[in-house]
Amino acid sequence: MKISAYAAAAAKVPLAPHAIERREPGPHEVLIDIRYCGVCHSDLHQVRDEWGGSIFPMVPGHEIVGHVAKVGAHVARFKVGDTVGVGCFIDSCRECEQCKTGEEQFCEQGMTGTYNAYERGTQTPTYGGYSTRITVNEDYVLRVPESIPLDRAAPLLCAGITTYSPLRHYGLKKGDKLAVVGLGGLGHMAVKFGRAMGAEVTVLSTSESKREAALELGAHAFAVMRDKEDFKALSKRFDFIIDSVSAPHDYNAYLSLLKTDGIMVLLGIPERPVPLAAGSLVTQRRKLGGSMIGGIRETQEMLDFCAEHGIASDIELIDIADINEAYERMLKGDVRYRFVIDTTTLPEPA
Amino acid sequence: MKISAYAAAAAKVPLAPHAIERREPGPHEVLIDIRYCGVCHSDLHQVRDEWGGSIFPMVPGHEIVGHVAKVGAHVARFKVGDTVGVGCFIDSCRECEQCKTGEEQFCEQGMTGTYNAYERGTQTPTYGGYSTRITVNEDYVLRVPESIPLDRAAPLLCAGITTYSPLRHYGLKKGDKLAVVGLGGLGHMAVKFGRAMGAEVTVLSTSESKREAALELGAHAFAVMRDKEDFKALSKRFDFIIDSVSAPHDYNAYLSLLKTDGIMVLLGIPERPVPLAAGSLVTQRRKLGGSMIGGIRETQEMLDFCAEHGIASDIELIDIADINEAYERMLKGDVRYRFVIDTTTLPEPA
Repeated sequence: MKISAYAAAAAKVPLAPHAIERREPGPHEVLIDIRYCGVCHSDLHQVRDEWGGSIFPMVPGHEIVGHVAKVGAHVARFKVGDTVGVGCFIDSCRECEQCKTGEEQFCEQGMTGTYNAYERGTQTPTYGGYSTRITVNEDYVLRVPESIPLDRAAPLLCAGITTYSPLRHYGLKKGDKLAVVGLGGLGHMAVKFGRAMGAEVTVLSTSESKREAALELGAHAFAVMRDKEDFKALSKRFDFIIDSVSAPHDYNAYLSLLKTDGIMVLLGIPERPVPLAAGSLVTQRRKLGGSMIGGIRETQEMLDFCAEHGIASDIELIDIADINEAYERMLKGDVRYRFVIDTTTLPEPA
Repeated sequence: MKISAYAAAAAKVPLAPHAIERREPGPHEVLIDIRYCGVCHSDLHQVRDEWGGSIFPMVPGHEIVGHVAKVGAHVARFKVGDTVGVGCFIDSCRECEQCKTGEEQFCEQGMTGTYNAYERGTQTPTYGGYSTRITVNEDYVLRVPESIPLDRAAPLLCAGITTYSPLRHYGLKKGDKLAVVGLGGLGHMAVKFGRAMGAEVTVLSTSESKREAALELGAHAFAVMRDKEDFKALSKRFDFIIDSVSAPHDYNAYLSLLKTDGIMVLLGIPERPVPLAAGSLVTQRRKLGGSMIGGIRETQEMLDFCAEHGIASDIELIDIADINEAYERMLKGDVRYRFVIDTTTLPEPA
């Protein structure tokens, strides 16, 4: 079926209306009417081909929520009308150790991205959630609890799981002192999760202007980190640091804020390598870890956790026609904290 | 009592005979007749004041083994004649969280080094094991199992615990694929421990000349790591890497050898920070950790493990008069794998 979407025809060209084909659901697939789609920083990077290898035309979007419109003959887990979500990938090999343990994001053959990828074993490009419908295998579809406002649920599918997973995987404990570095789409979710998990949350930012917002989000404390004295004052203070910043910054300075045996988890990938002093780790047996989204099982766990704890993303709802402007604002960090597209504003397919 | 020692009178001056004073054991102290003392790279760094703040005259040595010569009135754990050891520290605050959990090496007030430090709350310098006797509080004395050849036990007190502790702390498992980077005093112990713990051990070296020695030590495999192809060939091969190298080297290249969720542990501290690409950690959820010696409880556990598994250091026994030459050879990496001083070669005190 022809459906309506917004696509980039080439790198660095504005997004514009573009009709795409979605297939009728196969035996194990569901067709989803997309209601909202979050706008992730990685959409921007890929649309502009900043990571290389982009496939055009590109329909971005991997923070997808909506309702099941149709199910294939053998679909057992979903029925028409169910509220569902799709995150960063829509398939994986299903056979490797990672897939088998529910860590499909690390599939040894590579996960199949929700957009800017090819369907497994084909030359058919995948198209994302800046569109009105999508057909996905039921094993890669999440159930979105009804109690979460649907527009505010969309960013949970990427920003949510990206921050929830490391807190769980690396074992944040109740009573831990957690620092969140950076207060954007990821950071604001880390604050909410950290608080709900019983940690004492401090937001670290280079800008005093974020103080009020941080405390409103539930942070117990806020600190501006600019010079050596700022870091000295918080030396060995934290058990756990979530570092959501992608711009280059001084890892050693932040590591100095960890207690003995503390861990700092990197979510962002700065353009260039960052100098690491081994002493930052060795002398206090600290750890530096990485984390990347999360698997299907854990994403469902995260959505259920959000329902249980009344957690959703803070968003700014936009019309699809505003997407190019939204990208410009994202570049300036001018969004609290995630743009979400109302897909009813997509034009009818030509 | 006046006893015989070898000391550096100042930075970059050769070590020479020097008489020092050791006290009669207090109520909780033991006086130890030192039989052997290992020669650690850090002896050289401190003697030459390369880390700054060195205290002269300096009697180095923190890989000490010998026999109890006298015990204080309230000493419960040792009796005259017991075979004992002293490692990198001889005291700590005993009150902080780290001391209470047996991780005295991370004492929040700073551990008291076996040499090049001051006894707690005093201006009395500590003098190490390049000497014939030492007086130490019984809580910082280890029991050396009789089955370990005593000269080969000495390096266990530093090189041994420095490699045993991270394998335990970071959870090396039976069947894990372990890579050991660098085959010196630390690396050769990591091979022995890794093998005894049931890991499949590969030694990674920049020099083909170490192959035979690595396999003799018990490594299951050996690989020369020089160019990109060498690293590509072992991509995602290992669960665990022990990095014992202190010279600057490419962390990202070695991290690429780790599977998803693998860990690399740094033991050495290169002079300058090393560039770290966040993607090396993020994309496979890898971890980079540090480790530094080990606590008293764990050091005892390590010594008992060595006895149980027939493990000892491979050493080259030297006379104290050869110490300056030994330092020169260490700088060239010309030692298999640890120099150990026979303290019977120390001259009578003047």
